[in-house]
Amino acid sequence: MTFASSPDRGFPVGEYKARLAKVQRRMADASLGALFLTTEPEIRYFTGFLTRFWESPTRPWFLIVPASGDPVAVIPSIGAALMGQTWVTDIRTWSAPDLVDDGVSLLAATLHELCGVGGGIGMPSGHETHVRMPFADISRLKALLPRHEITGDHDIMRAVRMVKTDNEVAKIRHACQIAGRAFARVGDIAGAGVPLDHVFRHFQMLCLEEGADWVPYLAGGAGLDGYGDVISPATTDPLQQGDILMLDTGLVWDGYFCDFDRNFAIGAPSELAKSGYTKLMDATQAGADIARPGATAADIFHAMDKIVTGGAGGSEAGRLGHGLGMQLTEWPSFIAGDDTVLEAGMVLTLEPGIEVAPGRILVHEEDILITDGAPEFLSPRAGPDLPII
Amino acid sequence: MTFASSPDRGFPVGEYKARLAKVQRRMADASLGALFLTTEPEIRYFTGFLTRFWESPTRPWFLIVPASGDPVAVIPSIGAALMGQTWVTDIRTWSAPDLVDDGVSLLAATLHELCGVGGGIGMPSGHETHVRMPFADISRLKALLPRHEITGDHDIMRAVRMVKTDNEVAKIRHACQIAGRAFARVGDIAGAGVPLDHVFRHFQMLCLEEGADWVPYLAGGAGLDGYGDVISPATTDPLQQGDILMLDTGLVWDGYFCDFDRNFAIGAPSELAKSGYTKLMDATQAGADIARPGATAADIFHAMDKIVTGGAGGSEAGRLGHGLGMQLTEWPSFIAGDDTVLEAGMVLTLEPGIEVAPGRILVHEEDILITDGAPEFLSPRAGPDLPII
Repeated sequence: MTFASSPDRGFPVGEYKARLAKVQRRMADASLGALFLTTEPEIRYFTGFLTRFWESPTRPWFLIVPASGDPVAVIPSIGAALMGQTWVTDIRTWSAPDLVDDGVSLLAATLHELCGVGGGIGMPSGHETHVRMPFADISRLKALLPRHEITGDHDIMRAVRMVKTDNEVAKIRHACQIAGRAFARVGDIAGAGVPLDHVFRHFQMLCLEEGADWVPYLAGGAGLDGYGDVISPATTDPLQQGDILMLDTGLVWDGYFCDFDRNFAIGAPSELAKSGYTKLMDATQAGADIARPGATAADIFHAMDKIVTGGAGGSEAGRLGHGLGMQLTEWPSFIAGDDTVLEAGMVLTLEPGIEVAPGRILVHEEDILITDGAPEFLSPRAGPDLPII
Repeated sequence: MTFASSPDRGFPVGEYKARLAKVQRRMADASLGALFLTTEPEIRYFTGFLTRFWESPTRPWFLIVPASGDPVAVIPSIGAALMGQTWVTDIRTWSAPDLVDDGVSLLAATLHELCGVGGGIGMPSGHETHVRMPFADISRLKALLPRHEITGDHDIMRAVRMVKTDNEVAKIRHACQIAGRAFARVGDIAGAGVPLDHVFRHFQMLCLEEGADWVPYLAGGAGLDGYGDVISPATTDPLQQGDILMLDTGLVWDGYFCDFDRNFAIGAPSELAKSGYTKLMDATQAGADIARPGATAADIFHAMDKIVTGGAGGSEAGRLGHGLGMQLTEWPSFIAGDDTVLEAGMVLTLEPGIEVAPGRILVHEEDILITDGAPEFLSPRAGPDLPII
């Protein structure tokens, strides 16, 4: 186990300042007085504040990006030491949890100070976002800021986060390589007679052994010629000859995800499984062929959908790939209704799925980087034939 | 690796029905027409819908608990197969993501149907909760339901989830035992010269090897006589003689968490570290001594705070323990301001922390079950002396 080729951890401060400048230019265009952020990736994007403590839903965390000047953190005191190691210097804390006022009045005062009278407060409000604070505290905050309106963020966060820097891509690429090495060892832990939950548990161990910081996401399935769905937890059922096993992992290295899967045949696969798999490879190629700056997310969808459904317009999964980065899934979505124009620097998954028999599906997934030319496969690309265990 | 003593996975349907009945009685008292749920534990509590797919923030998921009758799921079609395996029969789906209407009109129509004209819609809105849907969609939902008010849930979810059933306790106990076996093997993976990130990675592997389904949470620290904080990710710094290493894990078995830590001295500990550790043991005992039905969360706090700060009223961590179960952290909080009365069936952590030198702390944590008598330690209780590696 050597990690000689690991990229550096963290980012130079200049990268955070560049992100800030990019966002503040867009805030000026939208006449926003402040961005108001509550979720892990939003706050980490500007600060580098990286902790698994977000798993605890107890405490709200807030970051305010003013129209000019540096971000201001309004956070529980338990996070002060770690936030103090980032480049953020204005850190305002309260002792959380506080059952009466869990940071809301401090937050309101800070927004009032930074935003000016009447300045608009923008909160990310669209797809792939949510509101990480209690419902009642949103109302309390509004009541404390009667002269400010809390609106959406004009999709500013979406726009800036969707295009990755080289430093970000290096982390995703590294995560993909770790997962690739783990997938290469699945033959050591899976086979006929091995319970699926054993495979799941040991695959996570492989990911860690190969260098993952942690494994936030693992899903998969197994069944004759295909599986029923791709989000179920593992059963204790043993794998059987003729099963197709699929493992789909989102492991993290330094806060950045990979997200791709691999299929394995337990024993010689049937013609049905083989032809289904070939179609997935063809669909992946069709997506990659046109994944260039200027193409839209919908273009990629249609190129793949033509192969996997004959152009029926989609399936139960709802999309055939998506962005990724600080989240397992990000914008855009490869669906018919997403007209996002691809740009160099976007990191995306190509994720075609196919129904091989009623209720039995196969799904394949690769991670790519949009470049000025052909996309770079960040995941070590699967070969043309279904690997046999 | 044998798991002969594992409890059953899942719950009998009767347990879900009992939860529902308990909640609907309280809804009647509060004149609520429906409960409106958006987060993973809330939805799983009534349905058993267990998947790691929540890691993807793309899709919103909704569950409505009507005043009478069974829960209704309003979910993306990708989840229909898995939800169909639960006892829920009324499953309404849309193809997500939908950039124009991501389930909001289906949700509004369902709420309207189930809630009746003017019926109040209650959403969990207090501590340990948040709103897992986009900010803009909350406004859209309100606009589609002009004759309904969305309020808090009168703390109904808090009240019912805070007291665990025997089946729930069995899962938490099992998770604690898995972590206990992993902690017993820390000497195999840690020692002077081993980088902290190596310890973190290999400790997660031990948790999996001992039977964890996954390891959503691991934090810790290491430093001379203590550590700077308890939420930072691992550095690559090697452990040194005199360091105290702390690992704090929230691993999951069948959807239920343990949450406790262990401290280890790298080489012989100093008197400072030893006396700090002894105080943590004393504080834990003081908390356990009064952790009986009828005591309040504040009582437990004061009993422990008296020992760790001399009664100063708390520290930067903000609390000295909390509930746990389907979340890493739940209600109540061991703080001066929480007057929640303990009841048999509550699962809680005792988590005293102490500052042994400026900026250097030690934290200890155990998981207990409140019974009619003395609490049961679900975590295999730490011995009186700091273990030495």
